Amino acid sequence: MSETFTQVPIVRVRDGQRSELSDATAAEVPLEVRLQGAPFAVIMRTPGADLPLVAGFLLAERIIRSADDLATIEHCTDQPQLSTQQRQNIVSVVLDDGAAVRATGQLAERRDVMANSACGVCGRATLESMRTGLAPLNGGARVPVAAVAGLPARLRERQPLFERTGGLHAAGIFTLSGDLLAVAEDVGRHNAVDKVVGTMLLREATPLETAALCVSGRTSYEIVQKAWCAGIPVVASVSAPSSLAVSLALEANITLVGFVRDGGLNIYTGAERIV
Amino acid sequence: MSETFTQVPIVRVRDGQRSELSDATAAEVPLEVRLQGAPFAVIMRTPGADLPLVAGFLLAERIIRSADDLATIEHCTDQPQLSTQQRQNIVSVVLDDGAAVRATGQLAERRDVMANSACGVCGRATLESMRTGLAPLNGGARVPVAAVAGLPARLRERQPLFERTGGLHAAGIFTLSGDLLAVAEDVGRHNAVDKVVGTMLLREATPLETAALCVSGRTSYEIVQKAWCAGIPVVASVSAPSSLAVSLALEANITLVGFVRDGGLNIYTGAERIV
Repeated sequence: MSETFTQVPIVRVRDGQRSELSDATAAEVPLEVRLQGAPFAVIMRTPGADLPLVAGFLLAERIIRSADDLATIEHCTDQPQLSTQQRQNIVSVVLDDGAAVRATGQLAERRDVMANSACGVCGRATLESMRTGLAPLNGGARVPVAAVAGLPARLRERQPLFERTGGLHAAGIFTLSGDLLAVAEDVGRHNAVDKVVGTMLLREATPLETAALCVSGRTSYEIVQKAWCAGIPVVASVSAPSSLAVSLALEANITLVGFVRDGGLNIYTGAERIV
Repeated sequence: MSETFTQVPIVRVRDGQRSELSDATAAEVPLEVRLQGAPFAVIMRTPGADLPLVAGFLLAERIIRSADDLATIEHCTDQPQLSTQQRQNIVSVVLDDGAAVRATGQLAERRDVMANSACGVCGRATLESMRTGLAPLNGGARVPVAAVAGLPARLRERQPLFERTGGLHAAGIFTLSGDLLAVAEDVGRHNAVDKVVGTMLLREATPLETAALCVSGRTSYEIVQKAWCAGIPVVASVSAPSSLAVSLALEANITLVGFVRDGGLNIYTGAERIV
């Protein structure tokens, strides 16, 4: 099985002191679901409980109704050209005859979707198709550590809906000295990022080469991908990044900062921009 | 503009006392994105900043590179048969000629996707296609309020990865007296639910008519949808549900409980099951 967490080197900043250490991030690895021998979906998941994950996913997709509908469900065994590691990221499902007949229409539709790429990750046929094709960002920007440390509080000040409902994610675009340029809230974390980036785009202010993005929740790879598309060199969060967010930030040359709270923070990538 | 939050009636339980009041939930409403006159995507979003949301979304989808690529971006104006409210949930985008030429291939692919339904919400052409077609759940189950109040603590006890990474969502399936049946963690909230439901399915224990689902984060409508597919009558969370989660729970006859913390909780739907 793939690992459920990944150790990454970080720079921890506490009370103005930097220390280099290793930290565990939750692994986020694509899992391909093959149904009746054909690609059905790609799920970004933390490895572990892969067979239950796929069974539950197929139940919610209404492909199966109970365990009786499953003839076999197993990690990929029939593609010897793949490495053991790769095969652990593929689950193959064969349906019972009755379920297969019921699912015929859905499977035909899905084959078209998978053959034509699609929206988001879930419909993309391969991990490769998630790559942005963008060049790494310029490394020139610098941001004071105190400015980064202050971002979550400034974001929170501007979250009226959260105060009212307790149920929203927020995202803010800031200057590298910590001044707020745009803020948005949404039930969807990714939407909040799209909203602030879109606000700056409609102001004709993209690419955001001298801006920082701060998000209220965890940092998934999609947040980093959106920052990359917008040219934002610094991404900060009060919470943890996933392992894939860290590796994408490395590839994009984005400074990724997590656990920005209580005056401290952890720098996962691009520590040279934090001064 | 559609409202950014929705008032819903709740039953608040504190120190064993129930009170009926009205509470604000973050609104979660589908937004259809039309590009060059054709459906391009449906985004579940909190209304507000819709034009920035679509602009940022199209940037991240690599359809546009800057504001220059947008000829027009506006709420739907050309479909008089729709209500004002409906038109506020549609944003139409016309690309500049150059961007339109660059996006030709992507648009053709997307048209196929939208025409063929797809995975998750993002590729579904209409809100109707998100309906499960399932019957409302039986109302017979009963669960003691003390058992519900204890679920988050029992879930947290079994979150080893969260303790290690601070970056994971958890989901647990419990008996109606509060005993843990299955637990899972994942970077994706929906995956954690699929994992625990799938675990029970592989044990041939679905439908879960006498079980409760507890999740670590906010409750979106998709969590409720997955519970419905699995036949789970009680869904609890330490945090807030979205407005659409509440309305779907009402339709499914699911008991939806939020803010389960500090001994108290808020019941959004199906209060008769909590005794």
